[in-house]
Amino acid sequence: MSSAPPRGFPEAEYAARVARAQRLMAQQGLAGLLLMTEAELRYFSGFHTLFWQSPTRPWFLFLPAEGKPIAVIPEIGAALMRQTWLDDIRTWSAPAPKDDGLSLLTDLLQPLAQAGARIGVLKGPETQLRMPLADYERLISGLPGLHIADATPLIRALRMVKSAAEIDKLRYICQLGSNTFAKLPEIAKAGMPLEEVFRSFRRAALLEGADDVPYLVGGADQGGYHDVISPPSRRPLQKGDILMLDTGATWDGYFCDFDRNVAIGRADDLSRRAYDVLWRATEAGIAAAKPGATCRELYRTMQAVIAEMDGQSGDVGRLGHGLGMQLTEWPSHAAFDDTVITENMVLTIEPSLGYADGRIMVHEEDIVVRGDGAELLTTRAPRELPVI
Amino acid sequence: MSSAPPRGFPEAEYAARVARAQRLMAQQGLAGLLLMTEAELRYFSGFHTLFWQSPTRPWFLFLPAEGKPIAVIPEIGAALMRQTWLDDIRTWSAPAPKDDGLSLLTDLLQPLAQAGARIGVLKGPETQLRMPLADYERLISGLPGLHIADATPLIRALRMVKSAAEIDKLRYICQLGSNTFAKLPEIAKAGMPLEEVFRSFRRAALLEGADDVPYLVGGADQGGYHDVISPPSRRPLQKGDILMLDTGATWDGYFCDFDRNVAIGRADDLSRRAYDVLWRATEAGIAAAKPGATCRELYRTMQAVIAEMDGQSGDVGRLGHGLGMQLTEWPSHAAFDDTVITENMVLTIEPSLGYADGRIMVHEEDIVVRGDGAELLTTRAPRELPVI
Repeated sequence: MSSAPPRGFPEAEYAARVARAQRLMAQQGLAGLLLMTEAELRYFSGFHTLFWQSPTRPWFLFLPAEGKPIAVIPEIGAALMRQTWLDDIRTWSAPAPKDDGLSLLTDLLQPLAQAGARIGVLKGPETQLRMPLADYERLISGLPGLHIADATPLIRALRMVKSAAEIDKLRYICQLGSNTFAKLPEIAKAGMPLEEVFRSFRRAALLEGADDVPYLVGGADQGGYHDVISPPSRRPLQKGDILMLDTGATWDGYFCDFDRNVAIGRADDLSRRAYDVLWRATEAGIAAAKPGATCRELYRTMQAVIAEMDGQSGDVGRLGHGLGMQLTEWPSHAAFDDTVITENMVLTIEPSLGYADGRIMVHEEDIVVRGDGAELLTTRAPRELPVI
Repeated sequence: MSSAPPRGFPEAEYAARVARAQRLMAQQGLAGLLLMTEAELRYFSGFHTLFWQSPTRPWFLFLPAEGKPIAVIPEIGAALMRQTWLDDIRTWSAPAPKDDGLSLLTDLLQPLAQAGARIGVLKGPETQLRMPLADYERLISGLPGLHIADATPLIRALRMVKSAAEIDKLRYICQLGSNTFAKLPEIAKAGMPLEEVFRSFRRAALLEGADDVPYLVGGADQGGYHDVISPPSRRPLQKGDILMLDTGATWDGYFCDFDRNVAIGRADDLSRRAYDVLWRATEAGIAAAKPGATCRELYRTMQAVIAEMDGQSGDVGRLGHGLGMQLTEWPSHAAFDDTVITENMVLTIEPSLGYADGRIMVHEEDIVVRGDGAELLTTRAPRELPVI
């Protein structure tokens, strides 16, 4: 196993991200970006904390047309923010329900409002407003003249393509995830409650070197599992179960996201066939993930293989997605998404199908797109459904 | 150690929550609540999944003036939602950027809009809009006649007071957290990088029976740490360090949230004094947490003790908060919060102070408020700064 890459990023990487954003902002006539979500704050500032788990306080980063981003944040984050490359850090004593950053934001944005400027806010697909809606409405109504544009396409264009240092982190956590799945025969045994399997998997991932396992779902049942987002039951694993575990483990704030399917003691024929179809659909997806192809084409390529067997539901909405600081990122391998795949995108290849009496199976691998096609970040799943 | 309580809740508990909400809605003239955040969906439906980690898809629960809640959710969640007590589950194939649930919501809300009704949405402090802002604006503008009110006070009033079954879960995870901290002398040793201490702590908490450790922050430095929300460094623990770990571990979707401070090898005098002041401030806070007192009074009671030493910054904004399905919930022990403390609130008591040259120290315990005062859920921290 290769050793861990460096944590964090050199200042030059943040400066380059900001420069790219500011070039796009200039093209789109945006005088600034007002950002408030964890991934965006970290992307431009390097501010990295689990404190986002607390929904109490809003956090803001303003990216002006020129110069470094400006942080407008609760005082509790000041010490950590001062360790980043930012210079202008404005804080207030939060929580303060009557003025949770609004005065500071108004001071910052007032000159832009007076000039009738446009700023970008994340309003589009897969984004959320991470501040109280009433505060947002109050902020905007207090800044007449300010025009709000949707910055989702801009941020999406930046974040979808990963830097070399980001890819190193993603490769590393995918390796740690693969090493953990390699121990599945020790982690999961017949008779063990699924709840204990989950706990055991998490401990194994930490032992391999993961920082955390924020996402772990799965299922197990005779002849196939029924859904793919459940927490574990206390039901003990039984001979004849098909077990699926799907994990989003993290290292330095970057996720892997992939799953593995195994049979406990023996594998039924339908599940073996579903596995075979999905293994080949994955292979087709990996082969098709070349620069210039679209996500829609990738989707259709996989769907053509899946169609050999799928006649049922099992609608998970897409057959893979982007991967990075979030468990799932743009784009989507789906009929609606005509995003052109480019070099250095990190993607999951995730075909699924419904079979038998309401069973579902999902396969997933993580790749980085290179000039000549996909490079696997995960250790490829075995060719046939493993029996453990 | 007592054994684990049952997972989930009986249907009667969900029915009672809905009935309480509908009584308040009737009083406030609300024809429905449109909810979209994890805690609220789980509170009224029992829908429990880590899939919320994926920001891609919005999820909706509509609570009408009468009858059970209606789920409007991505198809990928249908199988799990059918395991809850809900009957009316409407799904769409998500993601679908052009119509991510909006048509289904419009169909549902159109009759209310035509009647000029008011519905509640979470817009207030400590809430977020967990759907794309542009979609929200499109939904509302497509429903002329519909009035939107802020449902934050209503939801806050319900969720702040915990049921007996919720308290059992909170007590259990606080016990697991306490058992883990009891092993700190084995988990953390001089020479161990802080990053490894974190990993070791997480593994220990899982071994004790926690489902997950979504939150773990802390710090360590000679004579005191500098901030309280950082991820761990690779710096090895040294003799003379003050180490603080603050954890939000979960069991069945409920959090503990408390910390412990220890000295490595030897304790400096200022840190011992800070510990003593905060231990007594905690004691005062616990004693003051009786039904009828306000959060502001609780804050002032603790602040009076802290004032013995604090002359510096270290502004974390409040001295404790609510605890439940989220790491931090309403109310806040702060000068601005005049919430009256009532029986069966679960609260953290969390005094902090700044000392020496920019050092900070935080203490934290978790309590449930009973008729005659606080019952500790955590095993009380030692009277004096432990040296390990």
